[in-house]
Amino acid sequence: MSETSTSNASDRPKAVVLLSGGLDSTTALAVAVHEGFEPYAMTFRYGQRHAAELDAARRVAEAFRVARHQVVDIDLRVFGGSALTGDAEVPRDRSAGEISTGIPITYVPARNTIFLSFAVAWAEVLGADDIFIGVNAIDYSGYPDCRPQYIDAFEKMARLATRAGVEQGRMLRIHTPLILLTKAQIIQRGLELGVDYSLTLSCYDPGPGGRACGHCDACTLRRKGFREAGVADPIAYDD
Amino acid sequence: MSETSTSNASDRPKAVVLLSGGLDSTTALAVAVHEGFEPYAMTFRYGQRHAAELDAARRVAEAFRVARHQVVDIDLRVFGGSALTGDAEVPRDRSAGEISTGIPITYVPARNTIFLSFAVAWAEVLGADDIFIGVNAIDYSGYPDCRPQYIDAFEKMARLATRAGVEQGRMLRIHTPLILLTKAQIIQRGLELGVDYSLTLSCYDPGPGGRACGHCDACTLRRKGFREAGVADPIAYDD
Repeated sequence: MSETSTSNASDRPKAVVLLSGGLDSTTALAVAVHEGFEPYAMTFRYGQRHAAELDAARRVAEAFRVARHQVVDIDLRVFGGSALTGDAEVPRDRSAGEISTGIPITYVPARNTIFLSFAVAWAEVLGADDIFIGVNAIDYSGYPDCRPQYIDAFEKMARLATRAGVEQGRMLRIHTPLILLTKAQIIQRGLELGVDYSLTLSCYDPGPGGRACGHCDACTLRRKGFREAGVADPIAYDD
Repeated sequence: MSETSTSNASDRPKAVVLLSGGLDSTTALAVAVHEGFEPYAMTFRYGQRHAAELDAARRVAEAFRVARHQVVDIDLRVFGGSALTGDAEVPRDRSAGEISTGIPITYVPARNTIFLSFAVAWAEVLGADDIFIGVNAIDYSGYPDCRPQYIDAFEKMARLATRAGVEQGRMLRIHTPLILLTKAQIIQRGLELGVDYSLTLSCYDPGPGGRACGHCDACTLRRKGFREAGVADPIAYDD
């Protein structure tokens, strides 16, 4: 009980943190806490085939004792168009070089825009001016909505979209603490902040027990990151 | 059958049209068709208390023979914070002057941002570069996300968010044909284009039969619009 009473939640400014349960969003959550924010975690159930990531998000939210963990149901399957929500095969065993070429089949149309829009709505209701998202423009999968210029444009739009944008002295901020870090640097930062990466799951196509496949783009980038960081990945792989 | 065969759908560029079933979005749909687009209508079921508007949207979509009418379920009630989705009373009998003062309780946090984000996702899947939304910055209810500078910022963001934004020769456009029109001008424009306003429903708080209350902000602005346009409103009111 001493752990939960060490911080008075109301002393800290609130921040909405988008949390998938993967390595990046978990590290972004750790940074938000480290920077003194009271975290409100938001996770989406959007018809993804890798529903095991929701379990990971719950484990992480609990470990960080977030003020609230909101799971939002949205159905992106109506749009089709992605291997993460449709019937197409998730690509396997591509090199980091291949992964960074072009927009992959695992791209979900406008996903970060939809997720950030919900975060803006929740921030407005909470009276929060800060949103954290673990996007990354370095060791990433070529998604257009992970680039710094996209995030800047979203922030400008969101400031005009909401009450916060029309009230004096308030300024909505989209925090992207990982955007210019390599995967290895993200892992090192997280370890400095005490992140337990055994709780996280990055795989696009986990097995029935929620075990990472080890061969999809997400697993490939994660393994490369741990290798380059010179630390062992604490999760088990299905190979 | 001759009606459905008069136009070859594939000849026209596709446009996603946000359609609530109200007067404004119906007029925006009429403008999209008039400008030569093949309309894909998108309507949201978002826990609104005025679900009768979904019936109106279906009637309108059918009348315009849209290529597809997509109803998307999203739950904004998790956020609370609005009389349109919560338990608060919808304000009645406010004047147009009162309505335009401040952000009203009927404001749904970041609603247009969320709706437009889904439209961007659908446009990307359809290969469409055009989105129509019937927002209005003149006879409106003081929502921050109806202003031209908000729409401009959203458009800039959306161009960076999607494949269309990284492919040469493509340029996503958010069309707001009503943004600088008065309600009376919107009605006149719609009538020129042959809109049947008896199909539409604008009320925030309709009765059990889907009959407009006549006293909420939406009814007040609509009635004032028809009065100023010098035409009779073809719908019946509950008073």
